[in-house]
Amino acid sequence: MSGPEAPVLAVDVGGTKLAAALVEPGGRITAYDRVATPNRPGLDAAGLWRTLDALLGKLVTDAGNPPLAGVGVGCGGPMTWPAAEVSPLNIPAWRHGFPLRAKLRDRHPGLPVRIHNDAICVAVGEHWRGAGRGRGNVLGMVVSTGVGGGLILGGRLINGATGNAGHIGHVIVDPDGPPCACGGRGCLEAIARGPGLVAWAQEQGWRQESRDATGVELAADARRAHPVAVAAMRRAGRAIGIAIASTTHLCDLEVAAIGGGVSQAGALLFDPLEEAFRTHARMEFARRVRIVPADLGQTAGLVGAAALVFAQDRYWSAG
Amino acid sequence: MSGPEAPVLAVDVGGTKLAAALVEPGGRITAYDRVATPNRPGLDAAGLWRTLDALLGKLVTDAGNPPLAGVGVGCGGPMTWPAAEVSPLNIPAWRHGFPLRAKLRDRHPGLPVRIHNDAICVAVGEHWRGAGRGRGNVLGMVVSTGVGGGLILGGRLINGATGNAGHIGHVIVDPDGPPCACGGRGCLEAIARGPGLVAWAQEQGWRQESRDATGVELAADARRAHPVAVAAMRRAGRAIGIAIASTTHLCDLEVAAIGGGVSQAGALLFDPLEEAFRTHARMEFARRVRIVPADLGQTAGLVGAAALVFAQDRYWSAG
Repeated sequence: MSGPEAPVLAVDVGGTKLAAALVEPGGRITAYDRVATPNRPGLDAAGLWRTLDALLGKLVTDAGNPPLAGVGVGCGGPMTWPAAEVSPLNIPAWRHGFPLRAKLRDRHPGLPVRIHNDAICVAVGEHWRGAGRGRGNVLGMVVSTGVGGGLILGGRLINGATGNAGHIGHVIVDPDGPPCACGGRGCLEAIARGPGLVAWAQEQGWRQESRDATGVELAADARRAHPVAVAAMRRAGRAIGIAIASTTHLCDLEVAAIGGGVSQAGALLFDPLEEAFRTHARMEFARRVRIVPADLGQTAGLVGAAALVFAQDRYWSAG
Repeated sequence: MSGPEAPVLAVDVGGTKLAAALVEPGGRITAYDRVATPNRPGLDAAGLWRTLDALLGKLVTDAGNPPLAGVGVGCGGPMTWPAAEVSPLNIPAWRHGFPLRAKLRDRHPGLPVRIHNDAICVAVGEHWRGAGRGRGNVLGMVVSTGVGGGLILGGRLINGATGNAGHIGHVIVDPDGPPCACGGRGCLEAIARGPGLVAWAQEQGWRQESRDATGVELAADARRAHPVAVAAMRRAGRAIGIAIASTTHLCDLEVAAIGGGVSQAGALLFDPLEEAFRTHARMEFARRVRIVPADLGQTAGLVGAAALVFAQDRYWSAG
C-alpha cells in the first residue's frame, strides 16, 4: 500500500531524451535519471519500450523500491486520449501507435497510470507549482523545436473533445504566412518554433554555413546583439504576442507562462512580445494578463506529469 | 414556493430592444413581450430601469403571476461579473454602470438572479437546447452588429477570470488589418461585423447612396448574386473560418454554431467560411469540428438566460 507521502513515478518521453523522476506530493523531485532517446536504424517499438522500461526500473530500484502513488507521463503527440496509444512525431519507432498506457499498467497493476501531451504536462506543472500557481486561468506554453501549450481555466485543465486542447502553436497569426508542418498556414509554430526562426535568420545571413544551428544558439546570439538574431527574436515575439492576445480574448486569462529554449532570449523576446500584445489586447480585462517566463525549467513536464496523479480533481477528468 | 415546473423570467437587454419571456424547464417559451429600447435624449438610468421593470411586471401579471424559479438575464457588455453592474456600449443611459442584478434582486427577493453577457447567453442557449445540444465542447457565436460568443468546454460554460471568456470577435485574423472598436487591430469583429461589411461593400460601390444600409440587406443582396455583396460575404466567411480554426486548435471543439443577422446569408457565408477553415485546420482532431447555423434564432439569448437558472451546474459557477 502507498501512504500519503508516496511519490509518483513521473516520465517525460521526447524525441531527444527519455527522463524519469520520483516526485513528492509537494512537487519536489527526489530522484531523477535520463537517457538519450534511442534512434538507431531498425529500432522497433518493443526495443524502445525496453529502453524506457529499464530506465524506470533502475530509477525505482535505486530509490529502494518505495511504494508509489501512481505513474504520470508526458509524451510527445499525437496520441489517442485518454487511452494513450502514442505516435510521437519525433519518435519513429512508435510512429504507428504504441500502447504506452496499457504497457505501464501491466508493469504497475492497481496504480493509476495517466498520460497526457508533453506540453500539457508543462502547463500543468507551471500551474500546480510554478508561475501560474494560485491562479484560476492560466496558459502555459513551450517555445522550442515546436510550440505547444495547455490551458487551465476555472482552475481545471481543459482537455477538449479529444484531449487536444491547448494547441496554441496552431493559432493563426498571419493567414498568408509560411506553411506549417500541420498542413495549415501562418500558424504561430510555423513562425516562432526554433528551426523556423533559424531558417529565417539564415535566409537573412546569420550563420549561413552552419547546418545544425539551433534556436538556443540564435537566442544566445541575440543576447550578443547580433542584428539578425535580434530581428528573429522580434519576429517570434510579435507572433507570440498576437497569439496570446487572441487566446486572452477567448479565455480571459490571468497569467501566460512561457518556457522552452527560445524563451531563454529574455527581454529580447519578451519586449517585442509585450509590445505586440499591448497593441492587440486593449480591452480592460485583457490588459490585466501577466506574461511571464515559466518557473520550473526542464523539470516542468515531470512535475506536471506527477500532478495528473496528485491533483486529479484539477488535472484529470478522464477515466 | 416555486414548484419543479415553475418558469424562469428570462430577459434580454440590448441596444435595439428589451425582450422578456417566461421559459419552462424544457426550454419552451410560454410568454413573450418586447419593447424598443428607449433612447430619447436626456433619458437617465432610472428612466430606462422603469421601462424594463414595467415590461417584466406586465409579462408576469398577464401570465397570472406564476411562481418563478428565478430570473436570468443576457445583457450587452461590458459588465462587472458576477455582480453585474452593466455598462452596455449601445445603451447610453446605463453607460456609467447600472446595478442591474441588485435592482432585480430587490424586485424578486429570495429568487436566484443571474446575469451574463448577451452573447454568452446565446451560446448557452444553443448548447442547452440548440445546435450544440448533447456535445461537451461547443463554441456559440453571433455575427451581427458586433461579433460575440461563448465557449462551453468539458460540458461547462467557460467564464475566465472576469466573466469575459468567449470574446471570439477579438481573435486576431489579420494583424495588419483594419482598426477595431476595441482599440486593437485586425480583430474578427473589425472585419465581419455587419456595419464593417457594409462599409467595405459601400467602398466597393454597393448602395453608396444609402446611409442606413444594414448587414441583413447586404446578406439579402448577396443571395440575389450582387457581386460586391457576395464578395463581402466571402470576406466575412474567410475571417470567421480563420477565427474558428484558431479557436478549435486552442479548445478542441466539436461544434461551432453561428447565428446573428449576417449568418442569414447562408451558403454564401458558410461556403467560404468552410473553405478557410479547411485551409487552416488540418490536424485530425480539428477537422472533426462541425460548423453549423445556430438553431434557436432570435430567442437563443432568452433560452440561454433561463439556463443560467435551470442548469446552474453547467452554466453558473459564480455566487
